[in-house]
Amino acid sequence: MTLDQSLYVLNLLGIFVFSLTGAFIAIRRKLDLYGVIVLGCVTAVGGGSIRDALTGTAPPIYLRDETFLWVAILGAIIAFVFPRLERFERTLSAFDTAGLALFAVSGALGGIQMDFGVLGVIFVGTLSGVGGGIIRDVLVGAVPSVLYRNNEIYATAAAAGALTVYLLHDRVDVITGQLLGIFVVVALRWLSRRGFLKLPVRNA
Amino acid sequence: MTLDQSLYVLNLLGIFVFSLTGAFIAIRRKLDLYGVIVLGCVTAVGGGSIRDALTGTAPPIYLRDETFLWVAILGAIIAFVFPRLERFERTLSAFDTAGLALFAVSGALGGIQMDFGVLGVIFVGTLSGVGGGIIRDVLVGAVPSVLYRNNEIYATAAAAGALTVYLLHDRVDVITGQLLGIFVVVALRWLSRRGFLKLPVRNA
Amino acid sequence: MTLDQSLYVLNLLGIFVFSLTGAFIAIRRKLDLYGVIVLGCVTAVGGGSIRDALTGTAPPIYLRDETFLWVAILGAIIAFVFPRLERFERTLSAFDTAGLALFAVSGALGGIQMDFGVLGVIFVGTLSGVGGGIIRDVLVGAVPSVLYRNNEIYATAAAAGALTVYLLHDRVDVITGQLLGIFVVVALRWLSRRGFLKLPVRNA
Repeated sequence: MTLDQSLYVLNLLGIFVFSLTGAFIAIRRKLDLYGVIVLGCVTAVGGGSIRDALTGTAPPIYLRDETFLWVAILGAIIAFVFPRLERFERTLSAFDTAGLALFAVSGALGGIQMDFGVLGVIFVGTLSGVGGGIIRDVLVGAVPSVLYRNNEIYATAAAAGALTVYLLHDRVDVITGQLLGIFVVVALRWLSRRGFLKLPVRNA
Repeated sequence: MTLDQSLYVLNLLGIFVFSLTGAFIAIRRKLDLYGVIVLGCVTAVGGGSIRDALTGTAPPIYLRDETFLWVAILGAIIAFVFPRLERFERTLSAFDTAGLALFAVSGALGGIQMDFGVLGVIFVGTLSGVGGGIIRDVLVGAVPSVLYRNNEIYATAAAAGALTVYLLHDRVDVITGQLLGIFVVVALRWLSRRGFLKLPVRNA
Repeated sequence: MTLDQSLYVLNLLGIFVFSLTGAFIAIRRKLDLYGVIVLGCVTAVGGGSIRDALTGTAPPIYLRDETFLWVAILGAIIAFVFPRLERFERTLSAFDTAGLALFAVSGALGGIQMDFGVLGVIFVGTLSGVGGGIIRDVLVGAVPSVLYRNNEIYATAAAAGALTVYLLHDRVDVITGQLLGIFVVVALRWLSRRGFLKLPVRNA
C-alpha cells in the first residue's frame, strides 16, 4: 500500500468514525433509522463540505466519489445495530482524533493549493477538522462540544496541525508534511487528555 | 398549461407554503414584521440553496428569478395578516408535503445532471427537501423537527422520492420521472400520517 | 485618504468590532483562548462568507487577503486581554451598527454586480449584514438575537440600506451610493434606539 492509498484509507476511516459519533447521538435522541443515517452522514461529510466550500471546490468530493457516502452509511448502520459500541469511549476518542487530524490536514492542503496565506490555511484547516462535529451538535440542538471542551485542547490541535502543514509545505515532500501534520494533532490531543496541556480561560 | 409550467407552479407553491410555515413560527416567537418576512423567505429558499450549493450552481436560482422571492414574501405577509390560517393544520400539512416532494425531486434532478451516483442523488434530494425546515428551526433555537418526527416518516419520504427519480431517469422521460418521484413522497407521507408506516427506533 | 481607502478601513473596522462581539460572548461562555479567537473570527467573517457564497464568489475575500483575518484575530485577543471593554456598551453598539451597515452595503453591491433584481439585492444585503451575528449565536447555542431584538430595528435597517444602494446604483456614482446606504442603516438604527421607530409585532 502506497502512502497515497494509506491517506485515502485514513480519510475513509475519519468519515467512518465521524459517522459513528453522529449516529450514536442520533440514537440517544431517539431518531428513527433514517434519521440516524442522515445525522451520521452529515457529521461525516461536514468537515469536507466546509473545506470544499472555502476552497471553491464544487461539487464536494464526497458527491463525486460514492465510496465516502457508502462508508458513512456503513458507520451509521453499525452504530444502529451495535449501540453498545458507544461504551468503548477510549477507542472512539482515538478514531475521533484521527478524523480531526485528517480533515485538519486535508483542509490545510486545500488552502495551500488555493495559495492562501498562513491564516487562511489555519482557518480552513481548523473549520474542516471541527466542522462535522459542529453541524452534528447544532442539528440535535446541543451546544457544539468542540467549542466547549474547556478541559481539553481540540480546535487548537487542528490549528496546530494545519500550521505544521503550512510551514513544511515547501520544505519537505507533501506526504511527509501530511504525516507530520497528523502527528502534531494526535500528539497535542494525547497530551491534552493526559492533562499536560491547557489553554487559558478568561474569568471576566 | 404544459407539464413544465405545472412543475414551475408547483415549485412556487412549495416556496409559498414553506414561507407560511416559517412565518407562523416567527409570529409565535413575537418577531417583528421584517423578522417574519426574513424567516419566511429563508425557510422557503433554504432547500433550493442547499441543492444549488451541492451541485455547484452559483448564484442560486431564486436570486436569478425574482418570482421566487416575491412569492416567499407574499406567503410571509399573508401569514402575518391572517395568523389564524395556522389552525388549518391539515391543509398546511398537505402543502408542506407538496413542498417536501418538489424540493426532493428537484434536488435529485440536480444531482443527476451532475452525474452523481445513487447515494449522491439521494443525499442531495433529502437535504434539499428537509433543508428549509432545518434552517428555520435552527434560527429560532428549536431542535429541527424534521429529524425528530419519530412517529412520522419525513426525511425518508424525501429520500425515497429522490431514489425513484434516480432509478427512472434513463428509463422514462424526465417529466414522468418527476411526477412519479413526487407521487412516492406524497404516498409515503400519507401512509405514515395514517399510521401504516414506521421506521425502527433504537432503544440503546 | 481616498474614499476607496476609507471604505476598506471601514470594512476592517466592521470585521474588528464583529470579532469583539463574538469574542466577548465566547469569554462569557468560558471558552479557552483559541475558542475565543475562533468564535471572534467566524463572527467577523460570517457576513462576508454569506455575501460571497450567494454571489458565487469563491473562495471568499477574507481568505485571499490575509489582512481581514489578522484584524479579526486582533479583535478577539483584545477582547480576551481587556474583557471589561464589554462594559462600554454604547461604544460597542456604535461599532456594531457600523459593521452592520458596511456588510449590508457590500452585500447589496455584490448582488448588483450579479445583476440580481431588487429583492435579490435586499436579500443578499440583509443576510450579509446579520449573518455573522446569526452564526455566532447558533454556535454558542443562543437564539439569534438579530431576529429577536423586537424593541429595535436591526435586520430592517440592513434591508433599507441595501434598498438605498439598489435604487441609487445607476443614478449616482458608486461611492456616493455606498455612503448613502451606510447613512440610512446608521440613521434607522439611531432612531430605533431612541425609540422613534418600531415595526409591528403580531399577537396571534
